[in-house]
Amino acid sequence: MPPVPRLPGRDAVPRVVVIGAGFGGLAVAQGLANSGTIITIVDRQNHHVFQPLLYQVATAGLSPADIAAPIRSIVKRQKETRVLLAEVTGVNTSQRHVLLSDGNTLEYDALVIATGARHSYFGRDEWAEHAPGIKTIDDATKVRRNILLAMERAETIRQESLPDRDEYLTFVVVGGGPTGVELAGAIAELTRHATDMDFRFITRRCLRIILVEAGERLLPTFPAKLGDAARKALEGLGVLIRLNGRVTDIGDYGVRIGDERIATTTVIWAAGVQASDAAKWLDADADRSGRVKVEPDLSVPGHPEIFVIGDTASLVDASGRPVPGVAPAAKQEGMHVARSLLARFTGRRAPLPFRYRNWGNLATIGRKRAVAEIGTLRISGLPAWLLWSTAHIYFLVGFRNRIAVGANWLWNYLTFETPR
Amino acid sequence: MPPVPRLPGRDAVPRVVVIGAGFGGLAVAQGLANSGTIITIVDRQNHHVFQPLLYQVATAGLSPADIAAPIRSIVKRQKETRVLLAEVTGVNTSQRHVLLSDGNTLEYDALVIATGARHSYFGRDEWAEHAPGIKTIDDATKVRRNILLAMERAETIRQESLPDRDEYLTFVVVGGGPTGVELAGAIAELTRHATDMDFRFITRRCLRIILVEAGERLLPTFPAKLGDAARKALEGLGVLIRLNGRVTDIGDYGVRIGDERIATTTVIWAAGVQASDAAKWLDADADRSGRVKVEPDLSVPGHPEIFVIGDTASLVDASGRPVPGVAPAAKQEGMHVARSLLARFTGRRAPLPFRYRNWGNLATIGRKRAVAEIGTLRISGLPAWLLWSTAHIYFLVGFRNRIAVGANWLWNYLTFETPR
Repeated sequence: MPPVPRLPGRDAVPRVVVIGAGFGGLAVAQGLANSGTIITIVDRQNHHVFQPLLYQVATAGLSPADIAAPIRSIVKRQKETRVLLAEVTGVNTSQRHVLLSDGNTLEYDALVIATGARHSYFGRDEWAEHAPGIKTIDDATKVRRNILLAMERAETIRQESLPDRDEYLTFVVVGGGPTGVELAGAIAELTRHATDMDFRFITRRCLRIILVEAGERLLPTFPAKLGDAARKALEGLGVLIRLNGRVTDIGDYGVRIGDERIATTTVIWAAGVQASDAAKWLDADADRSGRVKVEPDLSVPGHPEIFVIGDTASLVDASGRPVPGVAPAAKQEGMHVARSLLARFTGRRAPLPFRYRNWGNLATIGRKRAVAEIGTLRISGLPAWLLWSTAHIYFLVGFRNRIAVGANWLWNYLTFETPR
Repeated sequence: MPPVPRLPGRDAVPRVVVIGAGFGGLAVAQGLANSGTIITIVDRQNHHVFQPLLYQVATAGLSPADIAAPIRSIVKRQKETRVLLAEVTGVNTSQRHVLLSDGNTLEYDALVIATGARHSYFGRDEWAEHAPGIKTIDDATKVRRNILLAMERAETIRQESLPDRDEYLTFVVVGGGPTGVELAGAIAELTRHATDMDFRFITRRCLRIILVEAGERLLPTFPAKLGDAARKALEGLGVLIRLNGRVTDIGDYGVRIGDERIATTTVIWAAGVQASDAAKWLDADADRSGRVKVEPDLSVPGHPEIFVIGDTASLVDASGRPVPGVAPAAKQEGMHVARSLLARFTGRRAPLPFRYRNWGNLATIGRKRAVAEIGTLRISGLPAWLLWSTAHIYFLVGFRNRIAVGANWLWNYLTFETPR
C-alpha cells in the first residue's frame, strides 16, 4: 500500500504521528511546532472538542460551535503539521505504521496515542441505547433534543393521560462524579426555567431530577467537604440525590435503582469509562478499564518510540499517585511527550519520568454555584463559580470561542435566557 | 377523540389555530396577542427558523442557534397562546378541527395555514438524495458537513488518485435565484479561505464552484441590472456561471447539464419549490406549484374561517401583481389576517383585500458585496452589503440572536475566521 503524500524534500526528518486531537494530542502537536519534525494528527472528527463543557451543550446552555474548533484552524500556523480525517484500525509496531480503515497506512518514527475513552456500561452494553453518555458533540445535541422533546410531550399530554406524564418530567443522571453533578445541576436549572417561563401546563413542581451515585457521597475524587457542598447546592436546585444507589437495569420503561423502578424517558449515563482500543492495537498490558500501563516517561514497555497519554494511559506518577483522567493531566502528558521527543531527536538526554501537577479540581452546579479545591484551599458557592468560569473560558481553545463563550455566559447570567 | 386541554374558564372566546411557526404564522399569533383570543400554534419543530440566513449555516458562517429561536420563547409573554409540537395530517373543514398524526384533534373557530414550501425536483424526486435543498436547520448542517468533508477527502487523497480529486473540489449549485446566488458566493468564500489558510495540499486553483441557472440571467425576479451585477460579483469570486443551463440528470456520479457530465460529490438544490399539502387538506384549488388560490382577503373560497398565507398561498393582490414567496410578504399577510380576525371577532367591518408592500429586494454575494433594489433605487457593492446586513440583523427574531449574529458578522468581517 502506498504511503500518504509527504511534504516535499523532507525525507530525512523525523515523522511523528499523533492519533486523537483531544487535549493530549493537541499538546503534543503544539509542543513540537516548528521543531523540524513532520507531525500528522489523525482524528475521526475534523474538530477538537472542549469536553469539560459538553454538558452545557447537552443542556442548551451553549452551542456546539462555542466549544468546538476545527483541528486545522488550531494548527494552521504550524506549516509542518498535517491533519488527517481518518479512522485508525490498528498499529503495525514492527513495520512502524498505522493502519487506516480505508486500507492505507501511515509511517511513523514516533507514535503518540491519545484516543481517550468512551462510556462503559459494566458489561451491559444494551443500556447504551436507553442511557446515552456525553462524549461527542453529536451525543450532546441528541441529549439536548431528548430533554426538550420530553418537556414538549409532557406539555401536550391529554387530561386523561396525566398519570403517564411523570415519565416525561423525570430525568435520571447516573454517576455522581463531576460530569454527573454538573449535568444534574444544569438539567435542574434548564427545566425549572423552562417550566416557569415557556410552558403553560407543566410547572416546576412536576419535575423530578434524580442523581444516582453508587458510592457514599458525591464527587468521590474531591475532598469530602466539597462533596457535601455539592449535595447541598444540588438539593437547593431541587435535585433528588440517591447515594449508595445501584443501577440494576435500564430499559424502555426507565431505570431500576436497587429494587425501585423509576419510569422515565430520559436517562443519562455519566458513570464508568472504558479506554479506547489502544491496548489491543499494541497488544500491550492494560488495567481493568482498558488503559495501557505505560512506563514512567509515558512510553509503552518495549516500545520507546510509542507513547500513550490521557484517558488511554494508566500511570502511577513520580509522586506515587495515579494520574487522574482529566483534561489538565492529558495536556501535561502531551507537553511532556513533546519535550521528550525533542530531546531525543536532538540526542540531548534520557527521557524523564512524568509528574502530574494538580492545580486543583473544580465542578460547577448551576448558574452561580461551584465547588473547588486548589492545593489546600476548598471553596464553594459564588467565588468558586467565578473561578470555574474564568478557568474554563481561559482554557478554551481558540480566541474566538473564548469570546463567544464569555459573551454567552454573561448574557445567560444577566437574562437567564438560554438558546435551545 | 377528546380535545386537547383548554385554558381554564375560557370556553366562550374564539379559538384560532395557526399551523406553522414561520414568518407568516408568527405574525398572526403576534398580531392577535392579548386580544382575548385563544391561539394555538402547531409546528413540527419546536423552533422558528430565520430562513433567509439558512445558507449561512450551510456554509459555516453562522451556528444554528444564531438563526433559530424556540417558538415558546418568542410568544412567552402572550399568556393566551399555546404552542403544540405536532404533525398535522389533515383538516376536517365541516367539523372544524385539525387532525394530528397522534390521532388527536384540535378544534378551531378560525384556522390559518402557513406551512410554507419544500423543494420541488420537477417530478424527479430521486434527485433529492444527491442534491439536497436547504429548508431546515438539519438540511443546512448536513450540507455544511458535506462541503467540509469533501475538502477533507480531497486533502488526503493519494498521489496516484489525483485525477479523482476534482469531484471533491467541484461544488454545483442549481438555481440562480437569491438563494442560489447567496449559496454560490458563500461556498466560494468558505472554500477559498479554507484552502488558503487551513489546508496544505489543495489550493484555491483546484476549486470549481458552478452555479447553474435555467434562465437567461441570474436573479430573474430582480431588475436586469442587478442580475448582471450579481454575475460580475460572483465571477470575481471565481464562480463559474452557466446561464440557460438545463439540469438533465443528477446521480451518484454528479450532475448532467444539457449533455455535459460534471463529476462532483456536492450538488445543492436551490431551484423549484412546491407548496406544502394545504391544498390537499382543504380539497381546494391550487396552482401549478401546489399553492392554494386564495380570495383577496387571503381566505379560502367557500371557507371565510380558513386563511392560507405565505409560500402556501397564491394571490394576485390589489396592485395586480402576484405576491412573491418571500419572508416580508408572509409577514405582511400574517399581520393582515390578524387584523381581519380582530375586526371580525369584534363585529367591526368586512374583510379588506390584502396588498403587498414591496420595500425592496436584497441578495448578498460573499463578504462585502450585495445587490439591492429599493423602490426605484438599484444599488450594488459594499453599500448594498451594509444595507443587507443591517436589514437582516434587524429582522432577526429575538434580541439575543440579533446580538449574536451581529457580533459574529463583525468578527468574521474583521478576522475572516469562521466557525465550522
